[in-house]
Amino acid sequence: MNTYMDVHRGMEGITAAQLKEAHEADTAIEHEEGVHFEHAWADPESGTVYCLSTAPSAGAVQRVHERAGHVADEIHTVSLSV
Amino acid sequence: MNTYMDVHRGMEGITAAQLKEAHEADTAIEHEEGVHFEHAWADPESGTVYCLSTAPSAGAVQRVHERAGHVADEIHTVSLSV
Repeated sequence: MNTYMDVHRGMEGITAAQLKEAHEADTAIEHEEGVHFEHAWADPESGTVYCLSTAPSAGAVQRVHERAGHVADEIHTVSLSV
Repeated sequence: MNTYMDVHRGMEGITAAQLKEAHEADTAIEHEEGVHFEHAWADPESGTVYCLSTAPSAGAVQRVHERAGHVADEIHTVSLSV
Protein backbone atom coordinates (compact mmCIF):
# COMPACT_ATOMS: atom_id res chain seq x y z
CA MET A 1 0.00 0.00 0.00
CA ASN A 2 1.16 3.51 -0.82
CA THR A 3 0.05 6.93 0.28
CA TYR A 4 -1.31 9.33 -2.33
CA MET A 5 -2.13 13.02 -2.41
CA ASP A 6 -4.45 13.89 -5.24
CA VAL A 7 -5.52 17.30 -6.40
CA HIS A 8 -8.78 18.50 -7.92
CA ARG A 9 -8.97 21.94 -9.51
CA GLY A 10 -11.87 24.06 -10.71
CA MET A 11 -13.88 23.57 -7.51
CA GLU A 12 -14.37 27.27 -6.82
CA GLY A 13 -17.15 27.90 -4.33
CA ILE A 14 -17.28 24.33 -3.01
CA THR A 15 -19.26 24.17 0.23
CA ALA A 16 -18.74 22.04 3.33
CA ALA A 17 -21.79 19.98 2.36
CA GLN A 18 -20.47 19.39 -1.17
CA LEU A 19 -17.05 18.35 0.15
CA LYS A 20 -18.68 15.93 2.58
CA GLU A 21 -20.94 14.54 -0.16
CA ALA A 22 -17.99 14.06 -2.55
CA HIS A 23 -15.92 12.39 0.16
CA GLU A 24 -18.78 10.08 1.08
CA ALA A 25 -19.26 9.16 -2.59
CA ASP A 26 -15.60 8.07 -2.56
CA THR A 27 -15.69 6.21 0.74
CA ALA A 28 -18.91 4.38 -0.22
CA ILE A 29 -17.09 2.50 -2.99
CA GLU A 30 -13.41 2.75 -2.04
CA HIS A 31 -13.23 -0.81 -0.68
CA GLU A 32 -13.91 -2.16 -4.18
CA GLU A 33 -10.48 -0.87 -5.22
CA GLY A 34 -8.71 -1.40 -1.88
CA VAL A 35 -8.46 2.37 -1.38
CA HIS A 36 -8.99 4.33 1.81
CA PHE A 37 -9.55 8.08 1.64
CA GLU A 38 -8.28 9.46 4.94
CA HIS A 39 -8.80 13.20 4.63
CA ALA A 40 -9.77 15.88 2.17
CA TRP A 41 -9.12 19.61 2.39
CA ALA A 42 -10.71 22.27 0.21
CA ASP A 43 -9.88 25.86 -0.66
CA PRO A 44 -13.15 27.22 -2.08
CA GLU A 45 -11.46 30.44 -3.18
CA SER A 46 -8.89 28.91 -5.53
CA GLY A 47 -11.13 25.90 -6.17
CA THR A 48 -8.52 23.37 -5.07
CA VAL A 49 -9.25 20.13 -3.23
CA TYR A 50 -6.56 17.82 -1.81
CA CYS A 51 -7.33 14.21 -0.91
CA LEU A 52 -5.01 11.99 1.12
CA SER A 53 -5.44 8.27 0.64
CA THR A 54 -3.79 4.90 1.02
CA ALA A 55 -4.18 2.63 -1.98
CA PRO A 56 -2.50 -0.12 -3.97
CA SER A 57 -1.92 2.21 -6.94
CA ALA A 58 -2.66 5.67 -8.32
CA GLY A 59 -4.92 3.99 -10.86
CA ALA A 60 -7.06 2.57 -8.05
CA VAL A 61 -7.39 6.07 -6.53
CA GLN A 62 -8.43 7.50 -9.88
CA ARG A 63 -10.95 4.73 -10.58
CA VAL A 64 -12.74 5.48 -7.30
CA HIS A 65 -12.76 9.22 -8.01
CA GLU A 66 -13.93 8.63 -11.57
CA ARG A 67 -16.80 6.37 -10.54
CA ALA A 68 -17.76 8.89 -7.84
CA GLY A 69 -17.96 11.57 -10.54
CA HIS A 70 -14.88 13.67 -9.85
CA VAL A 71 -11.69 12.71 -11.69
CA ALA A 72 -8.49 13.99 -10.05
CA ASP A 73 -6.28 16.40 -11.99
CA GLU A 74 -3.07 15.16 -10.34
CA ILE A 75 -2.23 12.12 -8.23
CA HIS A 76 1.10 12.08 -6.41
CA THR A 77 2.64 9.10 -4.67
CA VAL A 78 3.78 10.70 -1.42
CA SER A 79 6.25 8.05 -0.40
CA LEU A 80 7.71 10.24 2.36
CA SER A 81 5.95 11.93 5.24
CA VAL A 82 6.78 13.58 8.50
CA MET B 1 -6.39 30.43 13.14
CA ASN B 2 -6.78 28.94 9.70
CA THR B 3 -5.58 25.75 8.11
CA TYR B 4 -3.21 25.95 5.14
CA MET B 5 -1.91 23.51 2.57
CA ASP B 6 1.24 24.76 0.91
CA VAL B 7 3.04 23.27 -2.04
CA HIS B 8 6.74 23.19 -2.90
CA ARG B 9 7.85 22.12 -6.37
CA GLY B 10 11.24 21.27 -7.82
CA MET B 11 12.15 18.91 -4.95
CA GLU B 12 12.91 15.92 -7.19
CA GLY B 13 14.91 13.27 -5.37
CA ILE B 14 14.17 14.57 -1.87
CA THR B 15 15.08 11.97 0.76
CA ALA B 16 13.39 11.11 4.05
CA ALA B 17 16.28 12.75 5.90
CA GLN B 18 15.97 15.95 3.86
CA LEU B 19 12.22 16.12 4.41
CA LYS B 20 12.74 15.63 8.16
CA GLU B 21 15.45 18.28 8.23
CA ALA B 22 13.30 20.79 6.32
CA HIS B 23 10.31 20.12 8.57
CA GLU B 24 12.45 20.54 11.68
CA ALA B 25 13.84 23.82 10.33
CA ASP B 26 10.24 25.02 10.10
CA THR B 27 9.10 23.73 13.48
CA ALA B 28 12.17 25.19 15.22
CA ILE B 29 11.00 28.73 14.45
CA GLU B 30 7.27 28.36 13.76
CA HIS B 31 6.24 29.67 17.19
CA GLU B 32 7.70 33.06 16.32
CA GLU B 33 4.92 33.47 13.74
CA GLY B 34 2.21 31.58 15.60
CA VAL B 35 2.33 28.78 13.01
CA HIS B 36 2.20 25.04 13.58
CA PHE B 37 3.27 22.66 10.83
CA GLU B 38 1.31 19.48 11.39
CA HIS B 39 2.39 17.22 8.56
CA ALA B 40 4.40 17.19 5.37
CA TRP B 41 4.22 14.71 2.51
CA ALA B 42 6.73 14.40 -0.32
CA ASP B 43 6.68 12.84 -3.76
CA PRO B 44 10.38 12.57 -4.69
CA GLU B 45 9.54 11.53 -8.25
CA SER B 46 7.57 14.65 -9.23
CA GLY B 47 9.47 16.77 -6.71
CA THR B 48 6.33 17.94 -4.93
CA VAL B 49 6.05 18.56 -1.18
CA TYR B 50 2.76 19.34 0.61
CA CYS B 51 2.74 20.92 4.07
CA LEU B 52 -0.35 21.15 6.28
CA SER B 53 -0.29 23.87 8.91
CA THR B 54 -2.43 25.98 11.18
CA ALA B 55 -1.52 29.65 11.21
CA PRO B 56 -2.91 33.14 11.59
CA SER B 57 -2.25 33.95 7.90
CA ALA B 58 -0.69 32.66 4.70
CA GLY B 59 1.97 35.33 5.13
CA ALA B 60 2.98 33.84 8.48
CA VAL B 61 3.33 30.40 6.85
CA GLN B 62 5.48 31.85 4.08
CA ARG B 63 7.69 33.81 6.48
CA VAL B 64 8.55 30.62 8.39
CA HIS B 65 9.28 28.73 5.17
CA GLU B 66 11.33 31.63 3.83
CA ARG B 67 13.46 31.92 6.96
CA ALA B 68 13.91 28.14 6.97
CA GLY B 69 15.26 28.39 3.42
CA HIS B 70 12.42 26.94 1.36
CA VAL B 71 9.81 29.39 0.04
CA ALA B 72 6.47 27.76 -0.86
CA ASP B 73 5.27 27.93 -4.47
CA GLU B 74 1.59 27.96 -3.49
CA ILE B 75 -0.24 28.45 -0.21
CA HIS B 76 -3.93 27.58 -0.05
CA THR B 77 -6.31 28.41 2.78
CA VAL B 78 -8.10 25.10 3.18
CA SER B 79 -11.11 26.38 5.05
CA LEU B 80 -12.99 23.09 4.62
CA SER B 81 -11.91 19.60 5.59
CA VAL B 82 -13.44 16.20 6.04
